[in-house]
Amino acid sequence: MTDFTITIQQPDRPPRTITAPAGQNLFGILREHNLLVPSPCGGKGLCGKCKVRINHGPRTLAAALESESPFLSAEERKAGYRLACRVPVLEDLTIELPAAEAGTAQIMTAGDHQVPLNPLITRQVVQLSPPTIGDQTADVERVEQALGLPGSIRPELFYALPATLRDGGFSLAVVLAGEEVLALEAGTENTAVKPLYGVALDLGTTTLAGYLLDLTTGRQLDTYAALNPQQRYGADVISRIDYTLEHEQGLAELAQLVRAEINKMIAYFSRNDPAVASNIYQLVVAGNTIMLHLLAGLEVKNIAVSPFIPVVARDFTCRASDLGLEINPQGKVIFLPMISGYVGADTVAAILACHLADQAETSLLLDIGTNGEIALGNRERILTCAAAAGPAFEGAKIRYGMAGLPGAINRVRIEEDLTYTTIGGEPARGLCGSAVVSLTAQLLNAGLMEPSGRLKTPDELGDDYPAPLRARLRTVDGKPALLVAAQAEGAVKDIFFTQQDIRETQLAKAAIAAGIRILLKEMGMTASEVKTLYLAGGFGNYIDHHEAVRIGLLPEELADRVVPVGNGAGAGAKMVLLSRDYLQKAREIRAKTTYLELSTDRDFQNHFVESLEFR
Amino acid sequence: MTDFTITIQQPDRPPRTITAPAGQNLFGILREHNLLVPSPCGGKGLCGKCKVRINHGPRTLAAALESESPFLSAEERKAGYRLACRVPVLEDLTIELPAAEAGTAQIMTAGDHQVPLNPLITRQVVQLSPPTIGDQTADVERVEQALGLPGSIRPELFYALPATLRDGGFSLAVVLAGEEVLALEAGTENTAVKPLYGVALDLGTTTLAGYLLDLTTGRQLDTYAALNPQQRYGADVISRIDYTLEHEQGLAELAQLVRAEINKMIAYFSRNDPAVASNIYQLVVAGNTIMLHLLAGLEVKNIAVSPFIPVVARDFTCRASDLGLEINPQGKVIFLPMISGYVGADTVAAILACHLADQAETSLLLDIGTNGEIALGNRERILTCAAAAGPAFEGAKIRYGMAGLPGAINRVRIEEDLTYTTIGGEPARGLCGSAVVSLTAQLLNAGLMEPSGRLKTPDELGDDYPAPLRARLRTVDGKPALLVAAQAEGAVKDIFFTQQDIRETQLAKAAIAAGIRILLKEMGMTASEVKTLYLAGGFGNYIDHHEAVRIGLLPEELADRVVPVGNGAGAGAKMVLLSRDYLQKAREIRAKTTYLELSTDRDFQNHFVESLEFR
Repeated sequence: MTDFTITIQQPDRPPRTITAPAGQNLFGILREHNLLVPSPCGGKGLCGKCKVRINHGPRTLAAALESESPFLSAEERKAGYRLACRVPVLEDLTIELPAAEAGTAQIMTAGDHQVPLNPLITRQVVQLSPPTIGDQTADVERVEQALGLPGSIRPELFYALPATLRDGGFSLAVVLAGEEVLALEAGTENTAVKPLYGVALDLGTTTLAGYLLDLTTGRQLDTYAALNPQQRYGADVISRIDYTLEHEQGLAELAQLVRAEINKMIAYFSRNDPAVASNIYQLVVAGNTIMLHLLAGLEVKNIAVSPFIPVVARDFTCRASDLGLEINPQGKVIFLPMISGYVGADTVAAILACHLADQAETSLLLDIGTNGEIALGNRERILTCAAAAGPAFEGAKIRYGMAGLPGAINRVRIEEDLTYTTIGGEPARGLCGSAVVSLTAQLLNAGLMEPSGRLKTPDELGDDYPAPLRARLRTVDGKPALLVAAQAEGAVKDIFFTQQDIRETQLAKAAIAAGIRILLKEMGMTASEVKTLYLAGGFGNYIDHHEAVRIGLLPEELADRVVPVGNGAGAGAKMVLLSRDYLQKAREIRAKTTYLELSTDRDFQNHFVESLEFR
Repeated sequence: MTDFTITIQQPDRPPRTITAPAGQNLFGILREHNLLVPSPCGGKGLCGKCKVRINHGPRTLAAALESESPFLSAEERKAGYRLACRVPVLEDLTIELPAAEAGTAQIMTAGDHQVPLNPLITRQVVQLSPPTIGDQTADVERVEQALGLPGSIRPELFYALPATLRDGGFSLAVVLAGEEVLALEAGTENTAVKPLYGVALDLGTTTLAGYLLDLTTGRQLDTYAALNPQQRYGADVISRIDYTLEHEQGLAELAQLVRAEINKMIAYFSRNDPAVASNIYQLVVAGNTIMLHLLAGLEVKNIAVSPFIPVVARDFTCRASDLGLEINPQGKVIFLPMISGYVGADTVAAILACHLADQAETSLLLDIGTNGEIALGNRERILTCAAAAGPAFEGAKIRYGMAGLPGAINRVRIEEDLTYTTIGGEPARGLCGSAVVSLTAQLLNAGLMEPSGRLKTPDELGDDYPAPLRARLRTVDGKPALLVAAQAEGAVKDIFFTQQDIRETQLAKAAIAAGIRILLKEMGMTASEVKTLYLAGGFGNYIDHHEAVRIGLLPEELADRVVPVGNGAGAGAKMVLLSRDYLQKAREIRAKTTYLELSTDRDFQNHFVESLEFR
């Protein structure tokens, strides 16, 4: 298939050319290249906002659809406007986009809200009049006066200023964090177009994901994902805490590991242009409370034992250089606000990203990662709790569990036999979280497992039961297990789902289900009154919601009200990076959130026990 | 002579004992020991405020003077009250002083204003309720909430906080700089009475003087004076600047020298109690602009050449540890505001100390140190200039010049012969600044020198002229000179006042006189309209004002309106240390002050030439 060339004209930018495979949707192509046009409906042809003007493209103009008519005036149709989401690319095109809307960034968050661009970090070019015998204003005050910000330059920046000013002929680029001067750079002809970057970081217990954003346009330029290297000292937060207690340098070691990984990320972002690192002035970090403490190098031992006290839970800002992070030496690291020892900044960021705290109606947010954090609330009040779910749904503690990488089984179906799909269609290597949900639900439906969670034996199933399924019931280390994928049939190895795996799954789903019940009860409402169930994390994107309901993980009433929010922590961190208003909003979320401690809640224990069985 | 013992009783303090040489004045003794009693008249017996009660001292009670009567009631006389300034110590005494006035510091400034105690640095003891499972507030927020200062703890302090809190049983001492937390210390039984110190530093080109103050009582506990060790790289600021230009590490070297001397001072203050250094949380520095730049390590090269631009002139605050100063590691160094490259924080501090900027009437402030800074103004507006007077009046560049140390000739008198006095009555070692003024005036009066400044020859004087004086006219290195003190008559060496010395004096006095004229003209007033002439610096305390008028250094009209302010820079720095209100006032002084650049002022050159002659 040939690729076609699309020339993009935009009033405020130089023209650019992109290529697109024949037949592809124009709206999707534009989105892929971060050339977002407004689309509250998300490209479904319902809102009429994604108008583009076709300046060249006779076949495309001729193919205008009747369904676009309601959204286009007669003048617009005559001028060649079409809705991008209704246009397949059938030929070379020249199209005209509206000016990138001033002050609007192009990250989509849940519900397709757009982030108004108002980053804390800005760069101002200042042209000063040089001093004279009649104007002996000191260097520092000369700059501060031009900025209108007296006292905004810290003494550390005094040292280089005289040379910077005179090298740049008293033209200066000032990087500001709000009203504080971060950096002073000699002005050049290119100063005005010098890039200004920020990084949003979702620092998870298992993985970290980073996003490089252009703070002058709001565009996402690059992404990075890696395993959290602290993993070698334990899969979960408790074993990491233990490591810091058992080794004198343990805390420093764990801090150093994750800082080194962040520096690898920065190096990766700079792989084509070494100047990228020094133009990154801000890192916004979301993550659970323990990961944030370990990155900052703060002790975590008091989080491990009752009453579970973090050193800090409000947001705070460090110098990147104080943490050994190799962005601009004057750059800052913002640690987003946390709620408690076990409900962290990742939850606050996810609440931000799904706009739960903006709505009059009450919604539920579930973030099933290594722990399960749950939030229930609205714009008035939010309740949260942490369900000690364990990492079953991340594939950890599952015998053949693995992360959601290519080759992971992600869905199974049990009819006459068991069939499965894998991520990327590659030979099966293990089970990821969504496979665990899928397997449990399918085993239950197929009668291979009792509601108590016990796997049946081939004898119990009886001879009428399909032989291929009966043949899958095996034992592993003397314990019952189901053969999910066989090496003989193309898998990388034999892959089992064991009785023990089912028990892990049961404990995890019971903890989450009980947590949801406690929050609903505390809020004085029923599941059916919940407007939306936001599912954060990769898990939320990939599980079958009906299967999750089937095993009792999610309330039945909400099966059709699920909205996946993807990486809510990462999205929230990006929002804060792109607009200081969201840092304020994150603080407001923290202020209106109440944390419920489940570990000592007798009600929780009752709900937990009641939730263990599959019904 | 025997020393007597004086036992001091004071309602709010434990009794203490001091010793005093027989016959010494009680008021002076008390002041020496920082036991200040009020005395607007300065111990002259005119105000009656220095009442003390003699609880034991029969001879002293019997010797009560008639002149004290107007200030003492019959009851007071009966109860044993006397005026301290009228009491010579003749026996062992037990005396009772009034309570140290609460909240009033006991530094006297010009005009005997007292400083209301409101230091920026305070210590608060906070008793927190320990966390529970029902109150999981993080450590940082727990402290901030108790202080009522959210966000006031910097991340650097997070690290030690968990242990500090738990070691002190959740009792905590918080040292604050305004609303910013400086240090967090585990509470102990003694926390409430733990000392809290600050140091005021007058950093001069030639000398530095430091004052250790107790910030909880306002008392001055100790003093330190030393030569500025940078002197070895040049007596004046210009040669110091040159040194930084000619040596790659020159700036760092000069910074290091003065920082080391400050650390010697801190060590001296801690000589009896090593805990003193770590309880010093603030250093307030006054000094000229170049000395302040060198202490901060800021480059000075642009101050040396037109248009004479400092890096910074507003006040700024550094971490003491960033400068390598060995006070509490969290302690701060406040650099007081400066006006320009050649009118520094010493002048601002002196304006503060003499309250020139508080008065409706216009006064003149003259600080004759290594340079001559002049300020003329009132509470609305202040004009300043720097007269490039050179260090003649500090004894530098004077062939036999020396600082005002024991053995320095400080006053001469020429009648039939020349007689002189020395500081401390020791054998003459050289000439200090007041001797230079005195000699010039006396030479002029005695007709030994022409109004042009030329020394006469013995022949010109004629045979009628007193022979001892004629005999003093000699030559040194072939140039005319006056023998001031002869080794044969008890001086350490022959000491001359040379023709060249007279020329230096002439240039210096002309620069200052011309500066005063320029300021008066710019303010649109005459010398007779000036309310007070404040003379700052040791020089101001020791010169004979009439002699200074005689040589044309001071305006004739102000001879009787001179008020010496002593070390105005040191006094101003102390005021800022004791009350944050004075930091604000120092900023206001800077804001209302206009600097006049004399180096390019043609009017100044005219006035200068006109002022050269002695008339």
